[in-house]
Amino acid sequence: MEHAADPTHPRYNSLLKRKMIEDAAKIGMLADSALIAHGRGEAFDYLIGERTIESAMDATKEAAARLCAAERPVISLNGNVMALAAKPLLRCAAVIGADVEVNIFYRTPERMKVLMEYLKDAHVEIADQTPPEFDAEVWQKMVVEVRLLGNSPDGRIPGLEGPRANCHSDGILASDVILVPLEDGDRCEALVEMGKDVIVVDLNPLSRSAKMAKVTVVDELCRFAENLYVSCLNPAAPNDNWDNPKILQTALEEIIAGAVESA
Amino acid sequence: MEHAADPTHPRYNSLLKRKMIEDAAKIGMLADSALIAHGRGEAFDYLIGERTIESAMDATKEAAARLCAAERPVISLNGNVMALAAKPLLRCAAVIGADVEVNIFYRTPERMKVLMEYLKDAHVEIADQTPPEFDAEVWQKMVVEVRLLGNSPDGRIPGLEGPRANCHSDGILASDVILVPLEDGDRCEALVEMGKDVIVVDLNPLSRSAKMAKVTVVDELCRFAENLYVSCLNPAAPNDNWDNPKILQTALEEIIAGAVESA
Repeated sequence: MEHAADPTHPRYNSLLKRKMIEDAAKIGMLADSALIAHGRGEAFDYLIGERTIESAMDATKEAAARLCAAERPVISLNGNVMALAAKPLLRCAAVIGADVEVNIFYRTPERMKVLMEYLKDAHVEIADQTPPEFDAEVWQKMVVEVRLLGNSPDGRIPGLEGPRANCHSDGILASDVILVPLEDGDRCEALVEMGKDVIVVDLNPLSRSAKMAKVTVVDELCRFAENLYVSCLNPAAPNDNWDNPKILQTALEEIIAGAVESA
Repeated sequence: MEHAADPTHPRYNSLLKRKMIEDAAKIGMLADSALIAHGRGEAFDYLIGERTIESAMDATKEAAARLCAAERPVISLNGNVMALAAKPLLRCAAVIGADVEVNIFYRTPERMKVLMEYLKDAHVEIADQTPPEFDAEVWQKMVVEVRLLGNSPDGRIPGLEGPRANCHSDGILASDVILVPLEDGDRCEALVEMGKDVIVVDLNPLSRSAKMAKVTVVDELCRFAENLYVSCLNPAAPNDNWDNPKILQTALEEIIAGAVESA
């Protein structure tokens, strides 16, 4: 990670995110497989040119439209999502009026404790960082209203086994629109089968999660979170004729075109 | 990793290798970044269809030809390489008549100790596992003759800084043909600049290592090691007109074709 401090390095952003993941691993926020998953993401982002492609921006705007129009929007946070984008996503939750819920694959009391504490700290910080679009008092109120769920799950996602099914009955279980960035295929499938409007962020357009979601954003999480925030300030109405397979096809074509260009 | 024990799982081999990497991390063989690097490899192997493409097999045969014709062949082993393929590569070293040298990026006494012990154990095991092609006594002698270097480096690779430059003067430094699987770009470049015939194994045909090597095998390490062993039993003569850029181009085309097919 010797390059991470040098913003002129051509892969500065990628190295910075790698450092965030490594630091999160050191304080016990992540399972080992989380580091491997991050590496897969790096490879796909590399192929996509480490930029937000047009179809991903369209999908982000649709995500904003659905989250802002939802009755019970929830943003689901796992270890990698927390490590990379806890604060930007809390900012989005404040604008949307959503709750956030920590929901991890390898659920242990130790990891949950570290994650919930990290989330609380981020929540306090975000409340003090008023964006230019808002008055400080209004912003603080918006941030405080975001509930931080995950600590005392009293419900279960049907179709999943073990502790990974645990969730809040007034959080994920009650949600109508749910944003699940970097989610595994089984969990995504279970949420879709519950009839929820599932929005996924996944750099691999061929993954099970990407294919099963109602809206798939093929973009890197930090870029997505920044774009989502902006889109949520002025959301469009949800598009009832959203063609998600088309979005995946376009993303794949852009990845391929990028690879051909580099050759 | 709940699927790793089930050989009927469609991604069994991939999950098994992920488990090997996670286990190696647990016993201190790897830096955190090694897990991330493994994930990148997983993504590229996924795109390539988790199979040995024809151009990779050609490159493997050329690697065998050069290693077997070398005066001082050396196989360089880092943490990930050890975790995934220490034994298959020791078997190759025995057939080639090569030495192996542990050469890691984040060199600490603790990691070196774990790696050298792991390597010694693998060496003893391999000596007792005579392949069908050999007589047990002949095989044992071949294996015993493979020197396990890395513990007492007395030389440095020019052009590299810090402990990562350390190497054996009668090992990597004296080698004419060197196999460096999963190697970072800086080290690969330094070895090429020393005038060595550098053979790289890298699933990303666009990586700096892949581009700089004299022979690049775009294949997963375990599949490569098995193919290399077979090729070394009957090596061809080295090809003086080897067109490595062509190999990289072909590999990229096969990755793209695979992605298009999955779309």
